[in-house]
Amino acid sequence: MEELLNTTAGDVTQLKYALDTFYFLVCGALVMWMAAGFAMLEAGLVRAKNTTEILTKNVALFAIACIMYFVSGYAIMYGGEYFLSGITGDGFTGAEEPATYAPSADFFFQVVFVATAMSIVSGAVAERMKLWAFLLFAVVMTGFIYPMEGAWTWGGNAVFGMYTLGDLGFSDFAGSGIVHMAGASAALAGVLVLGARKGKYGKNGEINAIPGANLPMATLGTFILWLGWFGFNGGSVLATSDVENSNAVAVVFMNTNAAAAGGVVAAMIVARILFGKADLTMALNGALAGLVAITAEPSTPSALQATIFGALGGVLVVFSIITLDKLKIDDPVGAISVHGVVGLLGLLLVPVTNDGSTFSGQIIGALTIFLWVFVVSLIVWLIIKAIMGVRVSEEEEYEGVDLSECGMEAYPEFASSKN
Amino acid sequence: MEELLNTTAGDVTQLKYALDTFYFLVCGALVMWMAAGFAMLEAGLVRAKNTTEILTKNVALFAIACIMYFVSGYAIMYGGEYFLSGITGDGFTGAEEPATYAPSADFFFQVVFVATAMSIVSGAVAERMKLWAFLLFAVVMTGFIYPMEGAWTWGGNAVFGMYTLGDLGFSDFAGSGIVHMAGASAALAGVLVLGARKGKYGKNGEINAIPGANLPMATLGTFILWLGWFGFNGGSVLATSDVENSNAVAVVFMNTNAAAAGGVVAAMIVARILFGKADLTMALNGALAGLVAITAEPSTPSALQATIFGALGGVLVVFSIITLDKLKIDDPVGAISVHGVVGLLGLLLVPVTNDGSTFSGQIIGALTIFLWVFVVSLIVWLIIKAIMGVRVSEEEEYEGVDLSECGMEAYPEFASSKN
Amino acid sequence: MEELLNTTAGDVTQLKYALDTFYFLVCGALVMWMAAGFAMLEAGLVRAKNTTEILTKNVALFAIACIMYFVSGYAIMYGGEYFLSGITGDGFTGAEEPATYAPSADFFFQVVFVATAMSIVSGAVAERMKLWAFLLFAVVMTGFIYPMEGAWTWGGNAVFGMYTLGDLGFSDFAGSGIVHMAGASAALAGVLVLGARKGKYGKNGEINAIPGANLPMATLGTFILWLGWFGFNGGSVLATSDVENSNAVAVVFMNTNAAAAGGVVAAMIVARILFGKADLTMALNGALAGLVAITAEPSTPSALQATIFGALGGVLVVFSIITLDKLKIDDPVGAISVHGVVGLLGLLLVPVTNDGSTFSGQIIGALTIFLWVFVVSLIVWLIIKAIMGVRVSEEEEYEGVDLSECGMEAYPEFASSKN
Repeated sequence: MEELLNTTAGDVTQLKYALDTFYFLVCGALVMWMAAGFAMLEAGLVRAKNTTEILTKNVALFAIACIMYFVSGYAIMYGGEYFLSGITGDGFTGAEEPATYAPSADFFFQVVFVATAMSIVSGAVAERMKLWAFLLFAVVMTGFIYPMEGAWTWGGNAVFGMYTLGDLGFSDFAGSGIVHMAGASAALAGVLVLGARKGKYGKNGEINAIPGANLPMATLGTFILWLGWFGFNGGSVLATSDVENSNAVAVVFMNTNAAAAGGVVAAMIVARILFGKADLTMALNGALAGLVAITAEPSTPSALQATIFGALGGVLVVFSIITLDKLKIDDPVGAISVHGVVGLLGLLLVPVTNDGSTFSGQIIGALTIFLWVFVVSLIVWLIIKAIMGVRVSEEEEYEGVDLSECGMEAYPEFASSKN
Repeated sequence: MEELLNTTAGDVTQLKYALDTFYFLVCGALVMWMAAGFAMLEAGLVRAKNTTEILTKNVALFAIACIMYFVSGYAIMYGGEYFLSGITGDGFTGAEEPATYAPSADFFFQVVFVATAMSIVSGAVAERMKLWAFLLFAVVMTGFIYPMEGAWTWGGNAVFGMYTLGDLGFSDFAGSGIVHMAGASAALAGVLVLGARKGKYGKNGEINAIPGANLPMATLGTFILWLGWFGFNGGSVLATSDVENSNAVAVVFMNTNAAAAGGVVAAMIVARILFGKADLTMALNGALAGLVAITAEPSTPSALQATIFGALGGVLVVFSIITLDKLKIDDPVGAISVHGVVGLLGLLLVPVTNDGSTFSGQIIGALTIFLWVFVVSLIVWLIIKAIMGVRVSEEEEYEGVDLSECGMEAYPEFASSKN
Repeated sequence: MEELLNTTAGDVTQLKYALDTFYFLVCGALVMWMAAGFAMLEAGLVRAKNTTEILTKNVALFAIACIMYFVSGYAIMYGGEYFLSGITGDGFTGAEEPATYAPSADFFFQVVFVATAMSIVSGAVAERMKLWAFLLFAVVMTGFIYPMEGAWTWGGNAVFGMYTLGDLGFSDFAGSGIVHMAGASAALAGVLVLGARKGKYGKNGEINAIPGANLPMATLGTFILWLGWFGFNGGSVLATSDVENSNAVAVVFMNTNAAAAGGVVAAMIVARILFGKADLTMALNGALAGLVAITAEPSTPSALQATIFGALGGVLVVFSIITLDKLKIDDPVGAISVHGVVGLLGLLLVPVTNDGSTFSGQIIGALTIFLWVFVVSLIVWLIIKAIMGVRVSEEEEYEGVDLSECGMEAYPEFASSKN
């Protein structure tokens, strides 16, 4: 850097570095904010008696993700020199070529992605899982399971030395598969091990709605996620300091917003046809589905295509939620549908607008991510079940996990009745 | 662009483009966040039984605004080449001169303004309007009514080919009139067609307070709007990559904050004198009034003037809310006062500090916006009323629109009694 | 500036100015957002009957801070030319050398810090203080008490002309002491004058838990503060437009996040050992403690050190809250522990990684801040007590300060019982 410090060209190089770094940090802060979005969304969609516990899980899993990704996750994903000791006060050591932005900004941006993947699990296993069992899983997921598939995709490593996804035409811009479907795959494994909530499915095949306790919270959570997604997708361009990248970031912002809008409108229309009402929770799921659907490739579609892709996500999520309930896969917040099923849709839509990807590559990539995360998660959940159990007792579930796991109610003055 | 790519001067040009684009995107994201602010503010100020519906409206209107502005609004406001087909993956086609920032960033920033105008309507018609009637109005408002007056003001077109507002000395920096008063004008037309809520005004002229169900939500909404307004006003400088524009953006941030602070303190003092208490809802309305008042010109006042302008807004909003209630114009959240009456004040304050505007221009501009939006909105509301009706039945209103329109309660475990 | 306008080098200078200004504004907006965080955190941790009042206090104190810092605070802290009249539309007059960023951006960034210091007081005196007495204190705190110690530290002035803290090796990067401990010192004085809430401490020495009414709100507030803290610490680098500063900002973001994560995990483990449960309020306090602990020096530790420092804060805050309760110092939200005790820890940790500071300097600085703020605050609280009283009547406290001070309930439809 030294020779550049006293020339105009050097100043320009430094400015580019500074702008790209600042852009990463702003986008990373927006993604961190998504942790609040998941917490509010999930807290709004569970019953009052299980609210403190899901808030605790969301705060704790974010903290665990930050620590575990620092301990081992980043190193697994991007190279061994980044293990614990490789991180120092003035950035990361071990860089071989001059970085175009601050290495610690890269870590900051990546670490909040891990937390997003983990947040997805939290909602699906709500209202009946033991808190400490969940947190133990979070340690393994953020420190090992996610980083491994991250290494095969964004990290560019060959899968078990066998095949390289990028060479096969796999492309996942900001993580419809790598982050969202991965989180949903771990969630699915957890839900299968855990079973449905008591009372969700009746003896005669009836499906009982269990309404969330606080819909303004759930709506706030969705808006937070919508906002944070600009950082999630926008930051994934990885640079913004020249015209080409700057245009790309702007298109990504525009398309991310368009897809969410398309998802809302489509999900509301489908729900209106199916249920006869303007279903708020489906509108919220529609927004999130639109966002997940565009995440695999927000930079190449036109705004019209982005709206349509989002709308496809919005339609799919409604039918997916209905189907999972028929299969008695009990996911209180719809996370497996929103992030898993629509995440897969997002991957499959990439080749429509991005010539650099192939359908076969997308399918192989999706299978690789799903199989790895689902199978390893299943094993980990089963080990945890054997060691300490994963499910609270029937009585604790009836009383609410807030009292059994956290010892305090979320709304001690409000909730008039257990249900 | 080609010849610039390999020179330092070219890098600088690109950096300016990149910084201005990034600034637009950050400001646009902040304005998008205002949608959450309106949703929370309105959800907090209505009764529990009407909360799901107002949340649904806010999510849906934002999505509709994004789609309709893309379909027709942007083209009406800024030129025919931007109709649906004019939007492509790498920005907008049809630009004749080199842009100084990404065209899609401009669209992103503009589209969230439309949504803001529409959000204002939502609160005023709360607790008794049919949801789908409202959403139909949203389609017309965001795709046609707002873009037409936007074309006459920011678009620079002559009003029906008759007179050009800019030539008459009309100036509205970030939209006290173009966005806020426009939204309030559409809201006023809706409220007149709709009538007051049952029980709001008694037979003997008494005015019954109908308290909001969740004041922390309303306060959160106000803080969100306060934050988002930095993007709303700050982004309206339209550039930040040189000293002059950078200073302007900084002054706009400082003054926007100062005006909100002035509004809070003034409204609290007035409410203390009138009602004898520290009235939280008036403090919140005071903050928003201060913000609306400074929006027409946040770049030329001193911080002291900005504080005073905000305080004038804070005083005015309290008296306006009282007066509208005396006129039996039932606006559950005070939107017409905050955005309409104070929006007009904002327009009239511009010539005090901005030599480029005239009082006559401001008055003609305000009249143009009000008459256009109010009259056309009135016609549209009446057409919708004739087709499908705008108001829920008396029984549905008593039970709450959540059940009739959305089929779900916002707080199924909390609300102890209907009222 | 004139000669620079037409050269590439001039453009670069302007771009640096523009980027640094924009960075300040974004960071300042994030710190402003912390006001919402404190409001939500405190509103969630008090009982339903005292919620409107604490929301009102938070909105009003932010407005008062913005006005008083503008009237006198900034001038006391950074020089007499900035009194009221020194602020004009195009920035501040009186600058002797060319600024490297917009002067009004500096004011904007500084003013939100004052509000943070004042927000800390609000929570500690909750549920029993007269609202207008609190607001009167806010006027003195933000217009005089904080600016005086700010002048001695960041302002570089000698303490009463006697000694200069910087020369003694005192260093407080973003304000563990200058902002957080200062706020806590004023809070402690207020709590001592005010006394504990009725029913908090029993006659036989028992300590009664008084649970907060809305834990999702409290959790949201914590996430808001966590997000805002990136601006608080990140903006305190004061520049970002070259490689060195840009790296520093990135490290600060990474370490701020790491410390919060460390605080959460440590506080949860300690609470698990002590209470046997996953205590959500301790997890939230742990996050905030981690953030306070790293604030005095987030730029020199490694990420590992930052995590450990945060964890130390998380451990300390649990024991501090327990100890204060034993001392019958009643702080409903734990503000004195989080910001005061852990703020002191933050100051004492600086010399571990920053060679430019000394333990003796940190201790003298901490004593100076504490003694000044505590003693002057105590005098001011006592004067206010003599003039108008600081505490509501016993009956008003029983009924809740919402009715006596604000005349409206926060949740009129929910709260089933007074407690």
